[in-house]
Amino acid sequence: MRVEDLKHRIRGIPDFPKPGILFRDITPLLSDGQAFRQAIDYIGGRYLDKHIDVVVGVEARGFIMGAALAYKLQAGNILIRKSGKLPYKTHRTTYALEYGTDSLEIHQDAIKSGQRVLVADDLLATGGTISAAVDLVKQLGGEIVELAFLIELTALKGREKLKEHSVFSLIQY
Amino acid sequence: MRVEDLKHRIRGIPDFPKPGILFRDITPLLSDGQAFRQAIDYIGGRYLDKHIDVVVGVEARGFIMGAALAYKLQAGNILIRKSGKLPYKTHRTTYALEYGTDSLEIHQDAIKSGQRVLVADDLLATGGTISAAVDLVKQLGGEIVELAFLIELTALKGREKLKEHSVFSLIQY
Repeated sequence: MRVEDLKHRIRGIPDFPKPGILFRDITPLLSDGQAFRQAIDYIGGRYLDKHIDVVVGVEARGFIMGAALAYKLQAGNILIRKSGKLPYKTHRTTYALEYGTDSLEIHQDAIKSGQRVLVADDLLATGGTISAAVDLVKQLGGEIVELAFLIELTALKGREKLKEHSVFSLIQY
Repeated sequence: MRVEDLKHRIRGIPDFPKPGILFRDITPLLSDGQAFRQAIDYIGGRYLDKHIDVVVGVEARGFIMGAALAYKLQAGNILIRKSGKLPYKTHRTTYALEYGTDSLEIHQDAIKSGQRVLVADDLLATGGTISAAVDLVKQLGGEIVELAFLIELTALKGREKLKEHSVFSLIQY
């Protein structure tokens, strides 16, 4: 299955979550077993010889990419969650949204200093969420190998915000 | 790695999310690549010859089990989410919490009638959330093969609430 075949399994939903937004819905891709496996194999295949210790996923859809890639790469799976969800001692970072702010947390013992980290998410848009996730990984001394996304909305220039790091996306709009 | 070794990687956090609750924190297990892979292989190994079409995961930690198991089984990965998160037409079910109610949704086209479904989550407690997920799968005509959990809190008798279905848990407390 080619990348173009995977892209055909993503559908546009107009005006979600609000008027004027065309939401890229990956659920038809995920629900097709062959397509889901192929997407993870394309992305994960980049890192088979990269000695990834842990894959970080950001709540909630990022958990899907993080878990499947961690399994494929025989790496640990680290969770970055919204505030108040993680039970143990955390580091927190606050970042700007279009209106207001939001916070993300990581367990203080989630990553050992020097571990090689792949950060994974379903979507790269403006890069705000992933920048916050990168901050948390760095606070723990993790060495970021790459930031990997299923989809990139190139017009939103998230890549520029992340330019200190190598960024990979499988599908672009 | 034996199941007992996996259990040692789950830590108890007292008084989370509220006083008197001992929270079973699976993040140390997930963050150990060998342990995470072994846990998924133990659970997923039960279904290698069971022709699973799709694995359903419930937001948010259930996405981890759902995604890794779907990848292992070459099955589709279906998301059940909190209300308002899924962009396409949904079915919704409302269920009782200790105080008040909560709702879960599934896309109306997520499962084809007759597909063989594995429902996966990290934790079986009272079974309220999973009962709601089972309702949604049945509304779409899915044939539930089994309900699979990383952890079961046996004292809460969730298994009784789910007794129409086969239930498997890897680790019990």
